[in-house]
Amino acid sequence: MVKRYSFGDVFQTDSIPVIPEAQTGAMPYMDVCESEMSLTYQMDPEDIVYGLGENVRGINKRGWIYESKCSDESKHLEDRRSLYAAHNFIVVDGRETFGLFIDYPGILTFDVGYTELSTLRITASDWNLDVYVIEGESAVEIIRTFRKLIGRSYIAPLWAFGNGQSRWGYVNAQDVRDVVRNHRENGIPLDMVYLDIDYMERFKDFTVNKERFPDFAEFVQEMKDQHIRLVPIIDAAVKEEKGYSVYDEGIEKGYFCTGADGKPFVGAVWPGRSLFTDMLNKEARDWFGDQYKVLLDQGIEGFWNDMNEPSIFYAEDRLADALASIADMRDGDQNLDLDAFTKFKNLVLDLSANPEDYKKFYHNVNGKRIRHDQVHNLYGYNMTRAAGEAFERLAPDKRILMFSRASCIGMHRYGGIWQGDNKSYWGHLLMNLKMMASLNMCGFLYTGADLGGFGSDTTEDLVMRWYALGIFTPLMRNHSEMGTRRQEVYRFTDLEGFKNIIGLRYKLLPYLYSEYMKAVLDDDLMFRPLAFDHPGDKRARTIEDQLYLGKELMIAPVYEQNARGRYVYLPERMKMLRFTRDGGMEETVLEKGDHYVEVPLSDVVFFLREGRLIPLSGGGQCVDDVDFENLAVVSFGENAEYEYYHDDGLSKDYENPVNRRVIRA
Amino acid sequence: MVKRYSFGDVFQTDSIPVIPEAQTGAMPYMDVCESEMSLTYQMDPEDIVYGLGENVRGINKRGWIYESKCSDESKHLEDRRSLYAAHNFIVVDGRETFGLFIDYPGILTFDVGYTELSTLRITASDWNLDVYVIEGESAVEIIRTFRKLIGRSYIAPLWAFGNGQSRWGYVNAQDVRDVVRNHRENGIPLDMVYLDIDYMERFKDFTVNKERFPDFAEFVQEMKDQHIRLVPIIDAAVKEEKGYSVYDEGIEKGYFCTGADGKPFVGAVWPGRSLFTDMLNKEARDWFGDQYKVLLDQGIEGFWNDMNEPSIFYAEDRLADALASIADMRDGDQNLDLDAFTKFKNLVLDLSANPEDYKKFYHNVNGKRIRHDQVHNLYGYNMTRAAGEAFERLAPDKRILMFSRASCIGMHRYGGIWQGDNKSYWGHLLMNLKMMASLNMCGFLYTGADLGGFGSDTTEDLVMRWYALGIFTPLMRNHSEMGTRRQEVYRFTDLEGFKNIIGLRYKLLPYLYSEYMKAVLDDDLMFRPLAFDHPGDKRARTIEDQLYLGKELMIAPVYEQNARGRYVYLPERMKMLRFTRDGGMEETVLEKGDHYVEVPLSDVVFFLREGRLIPLSGGGQCVDDVDFENLAVVSFGENAEYEYYHDDGLSKDYENPVNRRVIRA
Repeated sequence: MVKRYSFGDVFQTDSIPVIPEAQTGAMPYMDVCESEMSLTYQMDPEDIVYGLGENVRGINKRGWIYESKCSDESKHLEDRRSLYAAHNFIVVDGRETFGLFIDYPGILTFDVGYTELSTLRITASDWNLDVYVIEGESAVEIIRTFRKLIGRSYIAPLWAFGNGQSRWGYVNAQDVRDVVRNHRENGIPLDMVYLDIDYMERFKDFTVNKERFPDFAEFVQEMKDQHIRLVPIIDAAVKEEKGYSVYDEGIEKGYFCTGADGKPFVGAVWPGRSLFTDMLNKEARDWFGDQYKVLLDQGIEGFWNDMNEPSIFYAEDRLADALASIADMRDGDQNLDLDAFTKFKNLVLDLSANPEDYKKFYHNVNGKRIRHDQVHNLYGYNMTRAAGEAFERLAPDKRILMFSRASCIGMHRYGGIWQGDNKSYWGHLLMNLKMMASLNMCGFLYTGADLGGFGSDTTEDLVMRWYALGIFTPLMRNHSEMGTRRQEVYRFTDLEGFKNIIGLRYKLLPYLYSEYMKAVLDDDLMFRPLAFDHPGDKRARTIEDQLYLGKELMIAPVYEQNARGRYVYLPERMKMLRFTRDGGMEETVLEKGDHYVEVPLSDVVFFLREGRLIPLSGGGQCVDDVDFENLAVVSFGENAEYEYYHDDGLSKDYENPVNRRVIRA
Repeated sequence: MVKRYSFGDVFQTDSIPVIPEAQTGAMPYMDVCESEMSLTYQMDPEDIVYGLGENVRGINKRGWIYESKCSDESKHLEDRRSLYAAHNFIVVDGRETFGLFIDYPGILTFDVGYTELSTLRITASDWNLDVYVIEGESAVEIIRTFRKLIGRSYIAPLWAFGNGQSRWGYVNAQDVRDVVRNHRENGIPLDMVYLDIDYMERFKDFTVNKERFPDFAEFVQEMKDQHIRLVPIIDAAVKEEKGYSVYDEGIEKGYFCTGADGKPFVGAVWPGRSLFTDMLNKEARDWFGDQYKVLLDQGIEGFWNDMNEPSIFYAEDRLADALASIADMRDGDQNLDLDAFTKFKNLVLDLSANPEDYKKFYHNVNGKRIRHDQVHNLYGYNMTRAAGEAFERLAPDKRILMFSRASCIGMHRYGGIWQGDNKSYWGHLLMNLKMMASLNMCGFLYTGADLGGFGSDTTEDLVMRWYALGIFTPLMRNHSEMGTRRQEVYRFTDLEGFKNIIGLRYKLLPYLYSEYMKAVLDDDLMFRPLAFDHPGDKRARTIEDQLYLGKELMIAPVYEQNARGRYVYLPERMKMLRFTRDGGMEETVLEKGDHYVEVPLSDVVFFLREGRLIPLSGGGQCVDDVDFENLAVVSFGENAEYEYYHDDGLSKDYENPVNRRVIRA
């Protein structure tokens, strides 16, 4: 059951497609304090707080303070309060069980037992917000009700479940060809190569550098002939450059965000001085969406939207001020002590993503000027919505791959997200796992993290262990930052190991795609904490490093360097499936309880629940190779059956009953 | 057995007091390549590589590349190659078992299977080095041989095993009084309050701010009357200020490092422009050591040496250049794209600890000018040696507390180290544990990490779990950075919980001090990986989150947020001791194997080995309170006995046989 409580003058975020009537009575569970703009709840020691989607720390969010403020935050460390998203949904599960969604476009704080261990306190920046209280029998039922409320999640094409390779640094067609050739020659399956900012003409959106990609459309086709899709990046900001049609047209039509003086606001991103399309202005949004056509027309079928928190390297006035202050220092006393040196450094360090700069520009929402910081968290959402709505117009019958860096709830209907610019840390492998569950709760199903880590230098063992998790995530992509160690799997020693692990992805594809589609269509979770299935099992409630995948599987990746295995808690009897480097599969039944399981570096181990089966294909070098009809099965127990979803993976006839059938052992 | 192999013109580091004759034959184990200045070894998949003291990552160092380069590195993340120390000792344990110590003052790289999983490769910056190959029956025997070679580790006074409280931000006597009063009133034991840089007169070494501490000697006594020792910080760099006696005298006598032009080299640290005492010049070192007298004379009995990598915020010429370049930008094109903006930011970001600046100054070693970068790793060592040697002259019969941030092997004879400016991360709690073992191997026994975390905001549960480890480490100190959340334990909710945990430290003191002293006197490890005691136990060889403490105990702290317990592997039958919040103790015998052990937040759980006992005191509010003679015992098994070491904790009659006696159950 969903109850909406409305306070003040609520901005229409469109996060929820059909808004229920507001309640008039007092809000249950939460102590509302309008003067402090807060909602408070006293937690029981055994309560778990789920949700908050893309954030650091655990599946249980207790013990930290989170700030919903979309941020270009490449340091996903324990002390970060915000990452790229604002996912304002939580479920308190324990003495009382209920869900809360705060429909609010500004900055919001969730103090989940940080200031005081047992106090949950949500604080808004102003008191104009809708609070949804969602009730149900259990956390999982509450989440389903919430997911129904926010509308069906974005559906990716089937080919987007293949293996993708990316790097900031594939600068021309030859680089891409080399990547593809190295995969194909080594028998490592591949379906996508991602193009980072290097493919553009001086970082101008919707352009392609002609020297680097002399005939882009032809090159797109050349790749498709090898069953490879190119997926280019699109940045939020538009380069200020006369003669560049997107800039000229945006200026002419007044589609960019404006400063207090009414003139277009200028910040800088990759190309230097740039403007920000007013994604909250429907006309401007439609216009920006239409720009994707230039790439669709060249055969592109997928995109990733980046820098859309929006990221601002500097605002032009702040840079000018900083340069002036520093220039003055040259003529003054250059003996800087702690305070003076800190002040000097901060002139530069505070240039990027300065909160004050987000107060300097305005949106035009139905003729009303709204200062950006008040609606900050809607920007990435509406950039991706621009694309998603345009795809409905431009290619209504076709699925286009789309995922974004920034997001808030609502955007889940238009695209997935990747988990941002993580690092090559073992800790980030575990964070990838945890976030899968939290993101699913918030409606983001097409998601995954940069395998091997985006920033910092990686190691072969980290990449291999990370793939052993990544083969289960809908978005499966190896991506890395310019200047870091190269990490395409063919650059390492144990090619056989990588082939086996990535090959397993393609054997699992029928099951993974089926589970993804059912989760989307049924407003369900693809990845779940163990506790959702075993609410009375105290141990299961604390497990943060294992997840259920569908009704059939439990995954428990190894995430520690030099480990030869790991502990696994089985809340019930399960069959352990071990896929070894020689392509073999071993099946071992394990009893309920604790187990130490050996997992050599190139093995993949996961667990099949009793009375269940999963289908397996024969694999392939690309999704087109995979036979989704003639399937083997692995089962545990008598009379196991599986509801298998499959469709053509490209069109949108999701509800056709022929897409679902039962498979028996 | 120790064999020395000598290459080139070796700088005398004094890391090893008595240098054995050099070998003439070929070096065993390692493939020596002079042209590449490297030593290489092909590792077996099952080999473990131990050592490297203060560094990130595991007890087993495989899978990363480490650089011995003392660095002011507050981000102890997985991708850091260096922290504050250069501990050039490793043990390869497996197919072949041997130790290696590289006696070398410059920058050295240990690629332990980073570039290629199975290759260990050590690379020097020039080919002037001594390589010690240490052989023995086992890793633990090799380490004992090495420890004997490098000389007896520094011995701290007994009172330094009490609980210490610190914060960058206790700015005056009243702040300190408040800290002490809050501990005493709440019954939380305390023995030391540390003074960070705020106590000094404008960050000038060996001064005390007269406004903040009007009569320092009297205040030191006031604290001592409450059984509290003040422990002030000493920085490496000396403020450039005419009329400041340390500066004036250093200049007059030529005791500071000089630039290429022979004039004193000026870098900046806390006070702004500063000079660096030439710690490698014996005369200058003696002079710097003598400066400690001014504080000893006021009743101070302990110090911590900081910023002695040495940390340099900026070199004056680089700052001037950066300011000039930035000033030019003001007049030029302020449209900075990715490249231009990165270049601009780096002008500022590259100011601090710039490797080129370490090539700009020189030491005077017996009349010979040596460029700093060639002997970089000796600086912190020789600063602490300056103090240690001075204490031998100034207070020969008394133990003075001394620990340092920077270090290399050799310094272990003059002081301990703290584990540097960590963060309030759960991951850093685990790193604290791992480093205890690695540091013990390298001779650093008086050590510990900043409990609760130095940088970033902490949480009550993190602080509590961290104390449950910290009560076992010789250096037990809660320290935090200015601007972070206050983290003195009395600021949190569960005072009873903290009282119980910190109280347990004082009950364990007889055992902990005894184990520390025996480890020092017998060149032994106080903290050991499990594998050292169970070389044939494959599981024990992979355990990275449990340690043996002495011959009696195994510790296994909880290091995950919201965990209610943890897995523990017992390589043999043990008795689990549980100390609960009510002051009670429970004893449970657990069989060899894997266990999931529940550990509520305020419990401390550890394990007693069979046939062993530990003594327990009745506790106390300070070390002076503790009765080290009338001891209870907890034992497991028949006929258990314990070799108990105790002395007066202040003087140096370590070898007196009355210090050791056998305690029986």
